[in-house]
Amino acid sequence: MIKSRAAVAFAPNQPLQIVEVDVAPPKAGEVLVRIVASGVCHTDAYTLSGEDSEGVFPCILGHEGGGIVEAVGEGVTSLEVGDHVIPLYTAECRVCKFCTSGKTNLCSSVRATQGKGLMPDGTSRFSYNGEPVYHYMGCSTFSEYTVLPEVSLAKIPKEAPLEKVCLLGCGVTTGIGAVLNTAKVEEGATVAIFGLGGIGLAAIIGAKMAKASRIIAIDINPAKFDIARELGATDFINPKDFAKPIQEVIVEMTDGGVDYSFECVGNVQLMRAALECAHKGWGESVIIGVAGAGQEISTRPFQLVTGRVWRGSAFGGVKGRTELPGYVEKAQKGEIPLDTFITHNMPLEDINEAFKLMHEGKSIRTVINF
Amino acid sequence: MIKSRAAVAFAPNQPLQIVEVDVAPPKAGEVLVRIVASGVCHTDAYTLSGEDSEGVFPCILGHEGGGIVEAVGEGVTSLEVGDHVIPLYTAECRVCKFCTSGKTNLCSSVRATQGKGLMPDGTSRFSYNGEPVYHYMGCSTFSEYTVLPEVSLAKIPKEAPLEKVCLLGCGVTTGIGAVLNTAKVEEGATVAIFGLGGIGLAAIIGAKMAKASRIIAIDINPAKFDIARELGATDFINPKDFAKPIQEVIVEMTDGGVDYSFECVGNVQLMRAALECAHKGWGESVIIGVAGAGQEISTRPFQLVTGRVWRGSAFGGVKGRTELPGYVEKAQKGEIPLDTFITHNMPLEDINEAFKLMHEGKSIRTVINF
Repeated sequence: MIKSRAAVAFAPNQPLQIVEVDVAPPKAGEVLVRIVASGVCHTDAYTLSGEDSEGVFPCILGHEGGGIVEAVGEGVTSLEVGDHVIPLYTAECRVCKFCTSGKTNLCSSVRATQGKGLMPDGTSRFSYNGEPVYHYMGCSTFSEYTVLPEVSLAKIPKEAPLEKVCLLGCGVTTGIGAVLNTAKVEEGATVAIFGLGGIGLAAIIGAKMAKASRIIAIDINPAKFDIARELGATDFINPKDFAKPIQEVIVEMTDGGVDYSFECVGNVQLMRAALECAHKGWGESVIIGVAGAGQEISTRPFQLVTGRVWRGSAFGGVKGRTELPGYVEKAQKGEIPLDTFITHNMPLEDINEAFKLMHEGKSIRTVINF
Repeated sequence: MIKSRAAVAFAPNQPLQIVEVDVAPPKAGEVLVRIVASGVCHTDAYTLSGEDSEGVFPCILGHEGGGIVEAVGEGVTSLEVGDHVIPLYTAECRVCKFCTSGKTNLCSSVRATQGKGLMPDGTSRFSYNGEPVYHYMGCSTFSEYTVLPEVSLAKIPKEAPLEKVCLLGCGVTTGIGAVLNTAKVEEGATVAIFGLGGIGLAAIIGAKMAKASRIIAIDINPAKFDIARELGATDFINPKDFAKPIQEVIVEMTDGGVDYSFECVGNVQLMRAALECAHKGWGESVIIGVAGAGQEISTRPFQLVTGRVWRGSAFGGVKGRTELPGYVEKAQKGEIPLDTFITHNMPLEDINEAFKLMHEGKSIRTVINF
């Protein structure tokens, strides 16, 4: 049992509390990781709000981290003490039917227990005052020390700065991967990106990498347009500037619609708009944002019968252990400008301020440095 | 002006009336066709019901025909008098951006006027007692003579029996094409087909051609199961036999869901069930059925984010002028057993009986022989 500083979410809609929790040693197939840095993501705020049907309290949030292996449990072969790692909320076991299908990154190996805030053996490694504290998304990176299954850790080069590449653990990879892996945007294609938070901005980077001919950036906060332009967006739309539905605006300005659209907010009305601004005959729309519990998307089936395709993407369709090292390499080469995303850095003690900045739309990503 | 026996829909929800209409000669780029036979399809009944927002009356329904070129207008080069043809409600001009995209069969060349019941010049070739009668789906095959744009006719070999291959003008091609062209079902895949009308049965043929390992046929009328089995279905489900949602039944019996599902009814609840019975991570669902005006599909976005794909298909993604000759050839070789679909034959005078049989579920296809 070791002591660890952690930001604990004791109840929905309450500020996180910085306390010292107890962390049990890794069991067989598990790894103890010392977290060096962690981004704060909208999904953390979503779960903290109480809207997430999988949210269980008390828990330790955080899923966009970078750390160093501190100890390994029995049978762990792919990692050793001192390795640098990025925690994965989408594991990659390489043996389940999902991993071996060649069609998806949605590994099923630890999914059932992860969704309950537990390790694969059905228990938690965290406790506070002798009472269990739940894991979160299999990561819990808002703790100085955390325990993960071996299959939930991507090993990355030691040269990469953990306080930056931690962002590849969620948002940045999700946005780029949705464009390159899920939609497979091709050179010359037109793209619309709804929502210019971290994921939307990353999707712009992906579209630029794919050599899209036109990248339309959409947000109701025009303060986001400068950075979108810097990353490669070519057109900028604030839906508040138009009386008509935004899908009609986009269809008109693109002579029929875009080849690909991406919803990066989690708003079901926007998901519909994103589908309906896709071009008849071949336009594809990808849902990346996470909607509130129980909310549903809808459209007329005619939209699909006339050739539009509706998809979704989780972690950008990226297989973490296999593909994240390549993303880290791209970041190291400057092809993924992580610095653009990091608007704030702060210590764990100030984490509630990071949530506040995010809610106010004042940050893209705050990185917590332990 | 020539006289033509035709079944005219003078108003929604009224029996068709067999009258003699006047047919004007084909204008430039148009072709006069003598219809030899025509299937009666659910879409005809849908428009007759008044539910179709594009339905205009009086009109001459029918869109699943076979005929012989009787005269050609100025500038028609691909067809000559005596050619055997299948009318196409999805034209193929080979020059519009849709035709040249390589991504869709949804030609836009005559779409705008076709949707209004008119020829490309904005007028009708049909009249009755001096008053115009509208075209329907660009075909109007319930008339002994009809006029179509050259781009809306597929030339087929003269040896093929028109009273059978007329079915390739809609339902049979739609079902097979949705499986082979739209979903691209691969060998060994599992498939669920919702609704065993003409399109659903054709989808079974397509799945069999694709060498699907398991073809699950679903209908609330178990009388359809024998023919489904004959065509290659391996499993049979009557949703009325289960208390739980049918998607759950299918997910359980397939260890997680099917690789591909097809909605062949036009029921928005069934479209949802079809999507939700698709396998997490890669399952694709194709909407083929036409829903009532204003009806919407819905689901939780989570269904897509976890890897399911929602598509639609119109005329099976088939480019009529290019691909229909191949379908006719397959039918001639017995690979598409058209006889299985033709449960009734009758003269034009009995066409209201054909609608009645269809409504009662007693026919798969009735062919009207002129």
